[in-house]
Amino acid sequence: MTQPAPLKRAPEGFLTPEQIEDVKAGRRRFLRGALAAASAAAAGAALAEPKGGDPHIVQLPEHSMALGQAVAARGYGQPSKYETNLQRRESPGLTRVRQASVSFCPLQGLFGIITPSGLHFERHHQGWWDIDPSKHRLMVNGSDPKMLERPMVFTMDELMRLPSVSRIHFIECGANTGMEWGNVAVPTVQYTHGMLSCCEFTGVPLRTVLEMCGADFKRGKFVLAEGGDGSSMTRTIPMELVMSGEVLLAYGQNGEMLRPENGYPLRLVVPGVQGVSWVKYLRRIELGDQPYATKDEVMHYVDLMPDGTHRQYTSIQECKSVVTTPSGGQVLLDKGYYNVTGLAWSGRGKIVKVDVSFDGGRNWASARLQTPVLSKCLTRFNIDWAWDGKPAIVQSRATDETGYVQPTYAQLRAVRGRRSIYHNNAIQSWLVEESGEVKNVQLS
Amino acid sequence: MTQPAPLKRAPEGFLTPEQIEDVKAGRRRFLRGALAAASAAAAGAALAEPKGGDPHIVQLPEHSMALGQAVAARGYGQPSKYETNLQRRESPGLTRVRQASVSFCPLQGLFGIITPSGLHFERHHQGWWDIDPSKHRLMVNGSDPKMLERPMVFTMDELMRLPSVSRIHFIECGANTGMEWGNVAVPTVQYTHGMLSCCEFTGVPLRTVLEMCGADFKRGKFVLAEGGDGSSMTRTIPMELVMSGEVLLAYGQNGEMLRPENGYPLRLVVPGVQGVSWVKYLRRIELGDQPYATKDEVMHYVDLMPDGTHRQYTSIQECKSVVTTPSGGQVLLDKGYYNVTGLAWSGRGKIVKVDVSFDGGRNWASARLQTPVLSKCLTRFNIDWAWDGKPAIVQSRATDETGYVQPTYAQLRAVRGRRSIYHNNAIQSWLVEESGEVKNVQLS
Repeated sequence: MTQPAPLKRAPEGFLTPEQIEDVKAGRRRFLRGALAAASAAAAGAALAEPKGGDPHIVQLPEHSMALGQAVAARGYGQPSKYETNLQRRESPGLTRVRQASVSFCPLQGLFGIITPSGLHFERHHQGWWDIDPSKHRLMVNGSDPKMLERPMVFTMDELMRLPSVSRIHFIECGANTGMEWGNVAVPTVQYTHGMLSCCEFTGVPLRTVLEMCGADFKRGKFVLAEGGDGSSMTRTIPMELVMSGEVLLAYGQNGEMLRPENGYPLRLVVPGVQGVSWVKYLRRIELGDQPYATKDEVMHYVDLMPDGTHRQYTSIQECKSVVTTPSGGQVLLDKGYYNVTGLAWSGRGKIVKVDVSFDGGRNWASARLQTPVLSKCLTRFNIDWAWDGKPAIVQSRATDETGYVQPTYAQLRAVRGRRSIYHNNAIQSWLVEESGEVKNVQLS
Repeated sequence: MTQPAPLKRAPEGFLTPEQIEDVKAGRRRFLRGALAAASAAAAGAALAEPKGGDPHIVQLPEHSMALGQAVAARGYGQPSKYETNLQRRESPGLTRVRQASVSFCPLQGLFGIITPSGLHFERHHQGWWDIDPSKHRLMVNGSDPKMLERPMVFTMDELMRLPSVSRIHFIECGANTGMEWGNVAVPTVQYTHGMLSCCEFTGVPLRTVLEMCGADFKRGKFVLAEGGDGSSMTRTIPMELVMSGEVLLAYGQNGEMLRPENGYPLRLVVPGVQGVSWVKYLRRIELGDQPYATKDEVMHYVDLMPDGTHRQYTSIQECKSVVTTPSGGQVLLDKGYYNVTGLAWSGRGKIVKVDVSFDGGRNWASARLQTPVLSKCLTRFNIDWAWDGKPAIVQSRATDETGYVQPTYAQLRAVRGRRSIYHNNAIQSWLVEESGEVKNVQLS
C-alpha cells in the first residue's frame, strides 16, 4: 500500500501542540487517581470550541454533559438527521408518469457492498403496493396438465416454512447506464449507474417448490414468472438457472421482509440476470417447454443492433465496474492523497481483477478487492491515489472469472452500435479538472 | 436434504383442481394470442376472493388493476406497514432509567446474517445523540510525549479520506443472555439473545492512523478508547488486536453512515470482542504501555467467580449459538415439516459446525451452514425437522475453528458458578409442548 501523505491537522490552528500536551497532561493526572468528572472535562477540551480569550477554558458539547435520548425511542431506527441528503432520487421527466419510472441508488455515498434497503433503487412498471401478505398467494402450474403433477397455490406462511437459503447478490436494471448510449453526460454516478443495488436475499429455491409439485424436468425447459401488480410483468427464465438452485422465491432482504418498493411480500431472485426478471409481487410460476415471448421480452429490454435487428433474451448482466469516488458532481478540495473506491460485478460469477487508470486508459494499476469476493455480487475495490492537481481521467476496468474484460466504449460500439437502451457495460470515465470538479466524459 | 412432506393446499378448498385447470386453460388461450387485459383477469383468478355463488367470478385485488404509488414517493424507504410488529424492544424495569438501558434485536423474525440497521440492538450508558459530524473530532495521543511522535486531531472528512476496509462482523453485548444465569426463563429469544447484531462495518484500520501519528509500537502495548457521550465510556484494547488490522475506526454500517443509536458518526469496531469495547461517539484514542483499568473495566463487565473473585478483561465472546425458530413464545400450529433455523458465532474465528438436538441433548444432527462462513461473523444454520406432535426440547451446539465446543449449563456452571451477569454462552433449550407452544427451559 502506498503510504498516505500526512494530513493537515484540522480545523487549522484549532489547538496548538502545546494545548494538546496540556490536554494529555491533564488526562494523565486523572488516570493516576482523580475523578471521573475531571476526565470528561479534560478530554472534552480537545473536542469543544474554545470560549473567550483563554483557549484553555472550553465549553464541553452538550452530548458530553447531559442525558441523551432513551433506548428504543425509535422502535425502528432511522438515519441521522445529518444524512437526509443521501436518498434515492428520480430523474424528473425521464418517464411520462411517476408510477412507471425509476429512482436511483446514491452509489456516491455508499460504503462496502450492502445496499441499505431504504436506499435500494426502484423500478416500477405500474407503481408500487404494500400488499397484505396474509392475502397473497403464489400459484405454481404447468403449461399443460402433464408438465406438473400437482399444481399448487401457496400462502406466504407455507412458503416460509420450507427450507430456505440466504445469499448476497447484486441486482441491476438492464437499462442501467442506458442514457450513456446517447453520450448525454448524465452528471452523477447516482444517475449513470444507480439502478444497481446489492442485498442479502432469503427465500426458497424455486427448484424445491417445483420438485414438491412433481414437475417434469425432462419436458420443462423454461419457467414463466408473473407479477401481481397492474403491469402483469411476465418473464421467461431458463431451467438451467432454476436447476442450479440459485433462483429463489424470496421474501427476505437484508435480514427482514422485502420492502414494498422491492416486491413485498414475494419476488423472484435470479442472480446475475437483469432486474426485470426478478419479478416483484410474484403471483404465479408456470413450467413450460419453450420461451414465452411475452410483451416484456419482445418489446422491451431488447437490444437494437447496428443492422436494425433486435437482440432478445440478453438477460445476463455482463462484467462491469464504476469508480464511485471520485465521481461526477464531486469536488476534490485539495491535492494529495485520496482513497479511490468503486464497485465491480458480473452476472457470470466472481470478479477476479479491477484495474484503475488515472490517465484515460494509458496506464493501469490493480486495485485492492474487498473480501469476501462473492459470485454475482458487488465487489468493492479501493486504490490509493496522490492527486497532483492536474487534469486526470479516472476509469476502472473489471475482469470476471470467465476471463471476460469490461470493454471500452469503442469496443462496445463496434459490436452494438449507438442506438441501444439496455445492457451498457462500458468503462466509465470521470474527468477531474484542475479546479477539482469531477465531470462525466465519454472517450471515443 | 430430507424431502419435506407435501404441504396442504391453503386456504383449504379455496380452488378446486378443476378451477385451477380452468385458470391454466384460460392462461394458455391468452398466451396463444389474446389480449394483455385478459391475462391479468385470468391469472388473478388464482389469487382473489371468489364473489357470489359462482366461484369462477372473482374480484381481482386492487393492486392488479390500478396504478400503485409513485417512484421515490419515499426518498428513504421504510418497511411494510404489515411488519411494524418487528421492532427492537426494551424490557421495562430492567434498568432504572431508559437512557442507561438496552433494546433487544428481534432475532425471531430475522433471516440470513445481516441485521437491518433499523433493528440493530441498542445499549446506551447515558442515552444516544445525533452528533453533528462536521463538529466531531477524534484526538489521537500517547500516554507520554514519546509514545507517539505526532498527536493529531482528525475531522470526520480527514478520516474518511484514508484507506478504508469493509467487513461483516457480529457485535454482542457482554451481558447478552445475562438473565439466564438466574434461570428466570425470559420468554423469547429477542430477550434472551437479542443483544446481538451483525452488520457490514466500514472504516479505517486503527493501525493506519497510529502509523500516521508515528506511534512507538515497541512501547505501546494497549490502546485506550474513549467515547464522547456523557458516560465517558473508556475501554482498554490490547495492541495485538490493533496490529492485526481488524480494529476499525468505523463510520459505515450496512453501506451507509452509522446510525445515531450505534455511535454516529464514529465508533470503534473490535471484532470478536464484547460490544462495550466498540466505543460509540469515539472522541479519543490513547496509546499506552499498560491496561488502563478504567471504571468500566474494573466495576462493570467483570465475572463474579464461585470463589468470590472478579475475573476482568474477559472480553472475547466465546463460541455460542441459538435456535431462533422455533423459539420461546412461538407456537407450532401443526405437526409436520419445519425448517429449524438459528445463528452461531465465535469471537475467536469461524464456525465449523452446528449440531442440533430435538430431544434435550441425547441425539444430535449436523445443521447446514449458510455460506459464506466468515470470521467473527454470524453464521446462519438450517436443519429439517418433522415434528411428530410430542413434546420436544430443541437445542443447538456450535463449534468454532479453534475446536472449542459451546458448553452446556452444567459445564459452564462448574467453572463459573451461578452469580455472573456477563459472558453466558451456554446451550439454550426450547421446550416444544404438545400444544405447539414453545417455552424457555433450562436443563440442569
